[in-house]
Amino acid sequence: MQTVTLIPGDGIGPEISTAVMKIFEAAKAPIRWEERNVTAIKGPGGKWMIPPDAKESMDKNKMGLKGPLKTPIAAGHPSMNLLLRKTFDLYANVRPCVSIEGYKTPYTDVDLVTIRENTEGEYSGIEHIIVDGVVQSIKLITEEASRRIAEYAFEYARNNQRTSVTAVHKANIMRMSDGLFLRKCREVAENYKDIKFTEMYLDTVCLNMVQDPTQFDVLVMPNLYGDILSDLCAGLIGGLGVTPSGNIGANGVAIFESVHGTAPDIAGLDLANPTALLLSAVMMLRHMGLHSHADKIQTACFDTIKDKKVLTKDLGGNSKCSEFTGEICRRVQDMN
Amino acid sequence: MQTVTLIPGDGIGPEISTAVMKIFEAAKAPIRWEERNVTAIKGPGGKWMIPPDAKESMDKNKMGLKGPLKTPIAAGHPSMNLLLRKTFDLYANVRPCVSIEGYKTPYTDVDLVTIRENTEGEYSGIEHIIVDGVVQSIKLITEEASRRIAEYAFEYARNNQRTSVTAVHKANIMRMSDGLFLRKCREVAENYKDIKFTEMYLDTVCLNMVQDPTQFDVLVMPNLYGDILSDLCAGLIGGLGVTPSGNIGANGVAIFESVHGTAPDIAGLDLANPTALLLSAVMMLRHMGLHSHADKIQTACFDTIKDKKVLTKDLGGNSKCSEFTGEICRRVQDMN
Ligand SMILES: CC(C)[C@H](C(=O)O)[C@@H](O)C(=O)O
Ligand SMILES: CC(C)[C@H](C(=O)O)[C@@H](O)C(=O)O
Repeated sequence: MQTVTLIPGDGIGPEISTAVMKIFEAAKAPIRWEERNVTAIKGPGGKWMIPPDAKESMDKNKMGLKGPLKTPIAAGHPSMNLLLRKTFDLYANVRPCVSIEGYKTPYTDVDLVTIRENTEGEYSGIEHIIVDGVVQSIKLITEEASRRIAEYAFEYARNNQRTSVTAVHKANIMRMSDGLFLRKCREVAENYKDIKFTEMYLDTVCLNMVQDPTQFDVLVMPNLYGDILSDLCAGLIGGLGVTPSGNIGANGVAIFESVHGTAPDIAGLDLANPTALLLSAVMMLRHMGLHSHADKIQTACFDTIKDKKVLTKDLGGNSKCSEFTGEICRRVQDMN
Repeated sequence: MQTVTLIPGDGIGPEISTAVMKIFEAAKAPIRWEERNVTAIKGPGGKWMIPPDAKESMDKNKMGLKGPLKTPIAAGHPSMNLLLRKTFDLYANVRPCVSIEGYKTPYTDVDLVTIRENTEGEYSGIEHIIVDGVVQSIKLITEEASRRIAEYAFEYARNNQRTSVTAVHKANIMRMSDGLFLRKCREVAENYKDIKFTEMYLDTVCLNMVQDPTQFDVLVMPNLYGDILSDLCAGLIGGLGVTPSGNIGANGVAIFESVHGTAPDIAGLDLANPTALLLSAVMMLRHMGLHSHADKIQTACFDTIKDKKVLTKDLGGNSKCSEFTGEICRRVQDMN
């Protein structure tokens, strides 16, 4: 039994978290959940921080699963997602995008992974007013973070039977910052001769991606480019409701999360689709080495979608969240 | 008769420029061409500049049509495209993306326009090494350039029977810079009550764009976001080979250009597809108020593609550039 910190989140978060827990139970996954709330609080000195009991839980368990968090509107209040990434130095944002059989989109056979540097770049938060009406934002690229994310990408490729890594950049424009990022990717690539390395401009990647996404495998890139490209790729396979995500840090810390919103309009109505959170939890199981449980749950989920009989509304069906969950549980139990 | 500066460009540039000139002649378009080369030269003080005779020609004619230019590899050599935008303060990059009947892509009925701020943002060119291994690039957003591009977008919408403008931003992350851009868009929107105004995060736009591009109309955004989104949108309708583009400046100056590469592998072989340059030239005609000539040429081009009998290789056919051009000329003449 391993303990995982569960952050159910806001809006539909609690419902889809319950769904995941039920399916994990049906699959006899050896996971104990420790539920924590992460509404930001003001610490000493007025700095926003996540509640100490949530921090302690994550520090102890090192493994977290997180539902959607509402974006606070108070001035100066940070995005909770960003605060979590920062607090636990979750430097790699990993999003596999795989076409789901039976869920129709303009594309088939998409099977790629975006790996986004999660700590710096355009997200440095450093901005200035130079003079009235002239503002600058600073994009910060460091050698260390660039090497770290490049190494993560190549290790990921090797460990997941992937054959190529593409570095995505605009070093033709940001010669020094993206240039540094690219140089580190090239250096790291030298140590992974088994993985094909290519480099491409971000604009070219976007164009080629919508023309033929099957040409891509693992993509690695600075923070903002990853924000854009991961959402674009999610769109190719059906959107954020079916796309899992993981934030990986040093020393074995990781938080897996669904990246869709809190959907306040349907919260509490048993209408939400738990797929993105469930597939994120499956990513977590694999990350923990629990492959047979991961396979079972993933198969049950994909078979339910392929079968088309019990689907939530956003997936094209009429079923409730609890019915969809029940169907996945039934299939999981058949496999036990 | 109006005189237009023609910059044929490198690689396939001369062939596709010849094609456009032939079609314009067939359409009896009242345009005289003044050909100029714009290979960068080193001016006094070692600064790269475009040749004086090209600059004079543009200053006089105010209107230019430009083929692809090869990217110089000399260290410190600027991109010629960027140098042209800068030299003539071409602040608005306009790319209409319209599905072409008969040219199959995963999407139909795309009909949108990206309007990109072309002079500042992430393209400021200001970068520093802070300490060894730590680099910063500066994104510069000004009130003036933001207001100017917002005004351009709303004017464009109004003059082109478009009903909505979407400002694309990441003001949740770059609160000051994108915040300023967004504020100016909101202010300008107040003066265009006939046009619907919305604002959206760049990542959300990318996701929604690949799911259903028909929901978008006119989009306006800072420089880098425009670079990305304009290429993405070009991909939706068939790529850079069929997508026109215009760079608009103050005081009536404008350069229309195909944004694809120089295709050195097929240069001189009469295999190139002149569509992007031709449609850019059609945009230019409309910009000059020559709508009937524009309509005629555009119809002839689209009919040729729809008809599928005489197409270049990249469009799925076996014909030469000159044959494709000849077919368009024939159709244009039938309409005279
Ligand atoms: C919520 C927001 C701050 C975040 C981002 O911009 O990174 C989101 O879009 C994401 O991709 O996780
Ligand atoms: C050639 C390059 C500098 C340019 C850019 O990045 O703006 C190109 O991608 C474009 O979109 O015109």
